Amino acid sequence: MSSEPTNRRIGLWMIGARGSIATCVAYGLSGLREGLLDPVGIATAQEPFRKLDFAPWESFVLGGHDVCRRTVSESAAELVRHGILTSDLVVAGSTEATAYEARIRPGLLDEPDVGFADLDPAAARNGAREARAQIEQITEDLRHFRTEHELDAVVVVNLASTEAHRADRPEWASLAEFEAALAEGRSQPASVLYAYAAIASGAAYVNFTPSRGASIPALRELAETRGLPHCGNDGKTGETLVKTALAPMFAARALRVLAWQGYNMLGNRDGEVLSEPAHRESKLRNKGEVVRSILGDPNVHTHVGIDYVPSLQDWKTAWDFVHFEGFLGARMSLQFTWVGSDSALAAPLVLDLARWAELALRRGESGAMTHTASYFKAPVGGGTHDFHAQFGKLLEYAAKPVRAARAGR
Amino acid sequence: MSSEPTNRRIGLWMIGARGSIATCVAYGLSGLREGLLDPVGIATAQEPFRKLDFAPWESFVLGGHDVCRRTVSESAAELVRHGILTSDLVVAGSTEATAYEARIRPGLLDEPDVGFADLDPAAARNGAREARAQIEQITEDLRHFRTEHELDAVVVVNLASTEAHRADRPEWASLAEFEAALAEGRSQPASVLYAYAAIASGAAYVNFTPSRGASIPALRELAETRGLPHCGNDGKTGETLVKTALAPMFAARALRVLAWQGYNMLGNRDGEVLSEPAHRESKLRNKGEVVRSILGDPNVHTHVGIDYVPSLQDWKTAWDFVHFEGFLGARMSLQFTWVGSDSALAAPLVLDLARWAELALRRGESGAMTHTASYFKAPVGGGTHDFHAQFGKLLEYAAKPVRAARAGR
Amino acid sequence: MSSEPTNRRIGLWMIGARGSIATCVAYGLSGLREGLLDPVGIATAQEPFRKLDFAPWESFVLGGHDVCRRTVSESAAELVRHGILTSDLVVAGSTEATAYEARIRPGLLDEPDVGFADLDPAAARNGAREARAQIEQITEDLRHFRTEHELDAVVVVNLASTEAHRADRPEWASLAEFEAALAEGRSQPASVLYAYAAIASGAAYVNFTPSRGASIPALRELAETRGLPHCGNDGKTGETLVKTALAPMFAARALRVLAWQGYNMLGNRDGEVLSEPAHRESKLRNKGEVVRSILGDPNVHTHVGIDYVPSLQDWKTAWDFVHFEGFLGARMSLQFTWVGSDSALAAPLVLDLARWAELALRRGESGAMTHTASYFKAPVGGGTHDFHAQFGKLLEYAAKPVRAARAGR
Amino acid sequence: MSSEPTNRRIGLWMIGARGSIATCVAYGLSGLREGLLDPVGIATAQEPFRKLDFAPWESFVLGGHDVCRRTVSESAAELVRHGILTSDLVVAGSTEATAYEARIRPGLLDEPDVGFADLDPAAARNGAREARAQIEQITEDLRHFRTEHELDAVVVVNLASTEAHRADRPEWASLAEFEAALAEGRSQPASVLYAYAAIASGAAYVNFTPSRGASIPALRELAETRGLPHCGNDGKTGETLVKTALAPMFAARALRVLAWQGYNMLGNRDGEVLSEPAHRESKLRNKGEVVRSILGDPNVHTHVGIDYVPSLQDWKTAWDFVHFEGFLGARMSLQFTWVGSDSALAAPLVLDLARWAELALRRGESGAMTHTASYFKAPVGGGTHDFHAQFGKLLEYAAKPVRAARAGR
Repeated sequence: MSSEPTNRRIGLWMIGARGSIATCVAYGLSGLREGLLDPVGIATAQEPFRKLDFAPWESFVLGGHDVCRRTVSESAAELVRHGILTSDLVVAGSTEATAYEARIRPGLLDEPDVGFADLDPAAARNGAREARAQIEQITEDLRHFRTEHELDAVVVVNLASTEAHRADRPEWASLAEFEAALAEGRSQPASVLYAYAAIASGAAYVNFTPSRGASIPALRELAETRGLPHCGNDGKTGETLVKTALAPMFAARALRVLAWQGYNMLGNRDGEVLSEPAHRESKLRNKGEVVRSILGDPNVHTHVGIDYVPSLQDWKTAWDFVHFEGFLGARMSLQFTWVGSDSALAAPLVLDLARWAELALRRGESGAMTHTASYFKAPVGGGTHDFHAQFGKLLEYAAKPVRAARAGR
Repeated sequence: MSSEPTNRRIGLWMIGARGSIATCVAYGLSGLREGLLDPVGIATAQEPFRKLDFAPWESFVLGGHDVCRRTVSESAAELVRHGILTSDLVVAGSTEATAYEARIRPGLLDEPDVGFADLDPAAARNGAREARAQIEQITEDLRHFRTEHELDAVVVVNLASTEAHRADRPEWASLAEFEAALAEGRSQPASVLYAYAAIASGAAYVNFTPSRGASIPALRELAETRGLPHCGNDGKTGETLVKTALAPMFAARALRVLAWQGYNMLGNRDGEVLSEPAHRESKLRNKGEVVRSILGDPNVHTHVGIDYVPSLQDWKTAWDFVHFEGFLGARMSLQFTWVGSDSALAAPLVLDLARWAELALRRGESGAMTHTASYFKAPVGGGTHDFHAQFGKLLEYAAKPVRAARAGR
Repeated sequence: MSSEPTNRRIGLWMIGARGSIATCVAYGLSGLREGLLDPVGIATAQEPFRKLDFAPWESFVLGGHDVCRRTVSESAAELVRHGILTSDLVVAGSTEATAYEARIRPGLLDEPDVGFADLDPAAARNGAREARAQIEQITEDLRHFRTEHELDAVVVVNLASTEAHRADRPEWASLAEFEAALAEGRSQPASVLYAYAAIASGAAYVNFTPSRGASIPALRELAETRGLPHCGNDGKTGETLVKTALAPMFAARALRVLAWQGYNMLGNRDGEVLSEPAHRESKLRNKGEVVRSILGDPNVHTHVGIDYVPSLQDWKTAWDFVHFEGFLGARMSLQFTWVGSDSALAAPLVLDLARWAELALRRGESGAMTHTASYFKAPVGGGTHDFHAQFGKLLEYAAKPVRAARAGR
Repeated sequence: MSSEPTNRRIGLWMIGARGSIATCVAYGLSGLREGLLDPVGIATAQEPFRKLDFAPWESFVLGGHDVCRRTVSESAAELVRHGILTSDLVVAGSTEATAYEARIRPGLLDEPDVGFADLDPAAARNGAREARAQIEQITEDLRHFRTEHELDAVVVVNLASTEAHRADRPEWASLAEFEAALAEGRSQPASVLYAYAAIASGAAYVNFTPSRGASIPALRELAETRGLPHCGNDGKTGETLVKTALAPMFAARALRVLAWQGYNMLGNRDGEVLSEPAHRESKLRNKGEVVRSILGDPNVHTHVGIDYVPSLQDWKTAWDFVHFEGFLGARMSLQFTWVGSDSALAAPLVLDLARWAELALRRGESGAMTHTASYFKAPVGGGTHDFHAQFGKLLEYAAKPVRAARAGR
C-alpha cells in the first residue's frame, strides 16, 4: 500500500450511482482532471485545507450500486436539459462515464420502495433476499472493485434516495444483537446493509442521506472494531446550511426567535421520493431539529414543509421566515429565498468527504469523523449544529500535527 | 471610587440624547429596572456573559447632548405611534424621563448641518464657536454631570445622526498635529470634538455612528495617553449584521459570490439625514466593504443602495440579493428581506457597550476595545468582519482571567 | 319604511360578534362617524361608487351572535397590543362598544367545535338543541333586534370562525327536501341555520366565511322565494386577492404557469381554528381553485399550505411562488410576500358589503348578488375569479340606471 | 399586393438586428416554423386572438440594421451559454440565421454612443453624416429589402439599446418644423431618423424601446399623412408589467399606497448601456410614472433603481416593495421578486406586434395603434397604464367587425 497520496489509487463507490449527485460527481471529476472546471464549492481545494496531503483528483476510480435502470449518460442528458451540466463537459467526460457505467452493479431495493418506477429487476431481486445474503453480495461487489482496480483504499458514499423512516429497533443497540438479528434472518433497511458491507469490507463509509446507514450503535461499534472511519448523516447543502449559519447570530445577539418556518420545494427524483410521507419523515426530522438546538430554546415554533414541484427539477427553492422579538417587545422578521441546484451543491461535498475519509483512513483514524460535522444536517457523534462552530472544528483538525496519528498505522 | 459594581454610579452620556435610539435606551432602562421588560437583545444579560460583574441597571444615570429642540417625551410619543414603544412603558418611565430631559445640554451643531430643521439655537451658536471653545464647553458639561451626580465613571456614547463625510486630514495623523491645528483655530467635525472632550474628561467613549469620532489616529493616541478605553464605529444592527453572519458561509463552502447587492430603505430621522449625499457617503463606506473583506475577493460585484422612504418610519427594510456560482458553473441565488426597528435593535447594543466600556474602565484597560468588534460595522482596530469570528473574540475576552488586569489600577 | 337612506336605520348583525373582524367593524364605524378615520379600504366611499345613495355610517346599528365569552373590549385590547387598533380609537369608541356588547346574544355552537376553549355555555346549550329550535331562537333574536331598534332593514353577516367542512348532502338540493330534513330533526351546520334564520326573518345575508351558509341550493331557493338578496362566500382579503389580480396577467400574455405554490401563516383565532384539518379543508378548497380556473389550465401544479404561527397574531403572512415558462422554453419565476392584518383588511369589506346588501334590499333585488363577486374567494353564483373582470361587473352594476329596479318594491 | 395573409410576404426589419431580442426573434421564428417550439408568450397565437387573420410565421422575412460587429450566431452562442436558447434550436435555425445575417446593414450610430465598444466602423461613419443623408440611406436600405424579397408589406421594429435621453425640442412639434430643421442640417437622435425613414418608405413602425422614435408630434403627423400605423414606446415585459397588473388592485380596494419602491438588476448589453446616466434617464421616466398614474395619487412615494450586475446576464431580477395603509391606519406590505429572461420575454411581444402592425397596415389603419397599449410602458396615444384595462381595449379591437376598415384601402 503506497503512502504517497499521488501514487495511491482510491476507489470512490457511490450508492445511487446513476442519480443526479453521482452523475455530477462523475462528470465533475472528469472536468477537474481535464482542467475544464475550477474547484468551486470544494473546500479541500482552497486554503487552509489545500496544504493537507489530500488525494489528487487523478487518484480516484469511480464505481457504485444503483437500483434504477436509466444510465449515467441518460442522467447527464437530463442535467444538461436542466441547466446543471454543460454539453461541453458531458462530451469531454463521455469516455470516463462509459467506464464508470460499466462498474455499476445492481443494488438492494429497500422493501418499502418495491413498486417504484424504472427499477432494475436485479435490484428488486436483491432486495427480496435474506439480509445475510444481501450483505454478502454487496461485500463481494466491493471486494471485486478493490481487486480489479488494484485500489489502495475504498470510500463508500451513500447517495441513494431517502429511505422510508424506521423507528429505532432493539437489535440496533449493539453489534452482538445486530448479528443475532441477521442470524435470525430479520430484514434490515437497505442503507444499513450497505453500510455493514462497506465497513466489513474495509472501506471508509460516508452517509450523505438521512437514511440510517452506519449511524445505528451496532454499526458504529462495527466501525470502531474494524478501526475504520465513517461519517454522516444527511448532507447540509442548502436551506439547512443557511439556517445553521444564521441561527447563531440570533443567539449571539440575544434576540428571541418566536417562529422559524421553512418551506421547501424540489422537483427531482429526491423530491418525488420525499412526496411519500414515510420517506419525508426521515428528512424532516433532521431539518426541524437544528434551529431549536442552536437557539437552545425547545419552545420556539418551527415548521419545515416540503413539497414536490416537478417543474423545478433539480433547482431546489426554499423560503424561510424568521419571526423574532427584539428589545422593548418589538416584533421583527427576516425572510430568505434560496434557489440552488441540489446536485451541483452536493457533488463537491461528496468529493470533499471522499478526501477527508481517505485521509482519515490513511491516518488510521477510526469511528465517527466528528470533524466533518459541518457537512451534515445530523452529524454522527452529535455536537452543535452551529455551522461556524462546526467549521471551526474542521479548521482545528486541519491545523493539528499528524505525525502521531500516522504512527498508528 | 467604589470597586463593587453594585454600589457604583455610572454616568451614561448620550450624544443625540433626544433621538430615537437614546429615547429607547432611556425608557428601556426604566423598564428593565422596573422588571417590565425582559432583557431581550442584550447579550450581557445572558450566558456566558452574565457571570461577569457588569454594572447593574440600577447603577446608570443618564445625560446627554443634543442639537434638536423636540423633547424626549415627544420622541417617545412618536415611537409609540410607530409601534416601537408601548404606552405602558412610556407611562411607567415618565418620571425618570423628565429627570433625564433636565440633564440634556445643547450640543455642537456640525457645520454642514447648519440649516436643518428643528434645531436648538444654542446648539447652532455652539457650532459656530472656535474648536477649542467647543471642546471646553463639552468637557465642562461632562465634568458637571460627573460632579453633580457623584459618578464613579462616565461612558460617552455617540448616537447622533450620521455626520457629513470628511476626507482624511494630515492634522489627524498624530495628537501633536491635532493639538497644533486646534491651536490655529482650525474647525473640526463635531463628532471629533465630542470624542476629544469625552476622553479629555476621563470618560470611556463609544462611537455608535459612522462619523469619525475617536477613530482618527490623533484621538486614538489621546486615549492611549490617558489610559482610557474606547470603541466604534457604526453599530452593526441589521442588514450588515446579517451580511457578516452569512458571507463566511459562502467562503467556508468555497462558493464563488458573483454579486452581492443590497437595497436599504428607512424612514426615520437617520434616513432623512442619509438622503443627503454627503452624509450617505459615510454610511455606505462601511456597509459596502464588509462583504468583499470577508470573501477575500476584491472583485466581487457589490452595491449598497439606501433610500429614504418616510412611511417606513423606524422600520428599516432591506433586501439583499446574493448571486453565486457553485460547482460545475451552476448559478444560484440567495435573497433576504430584513424588517427591523432600527432603534429597538440599537438600544440594547448601547446598553451592552456601556457595560463593556465601564468594565474596561474599571479593569484599567486602555485604547481600542477590540473585543467589541462584533458590535460594529467598521471596528476601530480593524480585524475580520466575520461576525462569528468577532463574537468568538468577545467570548475569549469574557473567558480570560481578570486578576492581572485589575492589578493595573 | 323610509326610502331616504339618510333617515333609515339599518341593523348590521354580525355572527362572530366578538371576533377580531367584528371588533374592527365596531370601532372602525365609531371612528368613521367621529371623523377620526379616513375611509381607507372602503371602496363604497370612493369614486365612482360614492355617488350611489349608500346608507351613511350614521344609519347603522350593530348587534350580533357569538359563542365565546370574551368581551368586545377584551378583543379590542388584544388588537391594540397587536398594533391593529390604536388606543385613541378604542377610547373614543368605548361608549358605543358597550352598547354593542349589550346587543350580543349567545349563538349556536357548531357540533364539531364542542370542546373548544373559552366557550359561552349558553352557546354550547344552543348548539345541542334541535335544528328547528335553533332556527327559531336565532329568528327570534333577529326579530327582537329589528323591533327594539326600529330598524328599516337588517343585514346579517357571517364572520364566525371557519366551520368544519361537510360533504354535500342530498337534503340541501332543494328547499322542500331541506324543510323535510328539519322536520325529521336532522342536525345542520350552524352557518346554515344562521343563514336560514336570517333570510326567514327578512334580512339580507352576507357570508364572509368559507362555511356553507346560504350557498346551498335549498337556501338560495329560500332567498329567491322571499325576494331577499344574499352573497358570499369567503372574503377575498389578502393572498387570494393578489393571486386573482396577478393570474390574469399570465393568461393575457400567454405565459405558461408551471406551478403556483402558496404558503400562508397566521396566528389569530382564525389560524388556530384552521390548524384543525376539518376546518382547514373548507378554506383550502376556495384558495386552491382560483388559479387553475383563471389560467384555464386544469393541469397547472398548485398547492396552498396554511400554518398556525401564534406569534404572528393577526398579521397574516403569505409567500407565493409562481414558476412559469416563457418563449423558447425559458423558465422564470415571480414570488411575492404579503404581510397584512387580516382583520383590518376584512372590516372595510364588511362595511362595503353591508352597504351593497342594504342597497340591494332597498332596490328590491333578490337572490345572489353576483355583482359583489370581487369581494369573495368563492362567489355564490360562480363566474370568473379574475379580480379585474369581477370588479368590472361591480362598476357596471354601479353605472346602470336604477329606476326600474326601484319600481319593483 | 395579395390580400390573402397566407400568400403575403411580410418583411420584419429589426433595428438592433444582432442584439439579444432580435436573435431570439430570429431563432424563435425558425423554431415556430419547424414546429420545434410552442407559441408560449405569443398572445396572437391563442384565443381569442387566434381567430383573426394574422400573417402566419411562414410569411415573415427578416432583415435589419445594427451598429455592432458581433454576428447573430455569436449572439446566439452567448444566449445558449446563458440558458435562454437551446443548442438544438440554434442548430436547427442556423441556415435561416445565415440568410438573416446577410440581410443586416450598418445602422446609424447615435451621437452620444460614439466610443462604445465593438462598433461597426460603417455605422460610426453613418452616424457622422448629415441627418438628411442618414434618412436617405436608411430609406434606401428599406427599399432594397422590399424589392429584393418582393415583400407585400414591411414592419420596422426598433429593438436597439436605449438611446441617451434628449429634452423636447421645438422642431419636433410639427412635421413642417421638423423638415425645416432637417433642411438646416440639424442633427437628430438616431431613433427619430430610423422612424422617419421607416414611415417615409411606407412601412409600419413599432418602437419597442424608450427612445423617442415616432412618438414626437412631427413623426406622428408624418404617419397620419402617409396613412401608416405605428406604435410604441418601450415594451412592457417584466417588472413594469407586474406593477401595472397589481396597482389597479390597490386602487379598486381603496387601499392607500404609501410607497412603491422598485429595484432592478440586469446584466446584459441593455444593462450595460443603462449604467450610463443619460441612457438610464430615458428608461426610468417610463418605469416611475405608471404607479402614480394608476393610483391617481401624485404624492405616492415611488422610486425605481436600476443597477448593472454583469453576472445576471439576460436574467433581469427585480424586487418591488409596496408599503400601504389599510383601514384603521394599519400598515401592510407586499413585496415581489421577478426573475425573467428579458429577451425571451420581449421576443414574443415583437412577433405579436409585427402581426398587429401588419394587420393594421392591411386594414388601412393609420396613426397610433392605441389598441396595443398593453404592450408598452409609455403607449403612444396615452391612456391608462392599467394592464387589464389596456388588455380590454385589445379584446375590443379584436372583437369589432373589420369590413368597414378594409374598405378604406
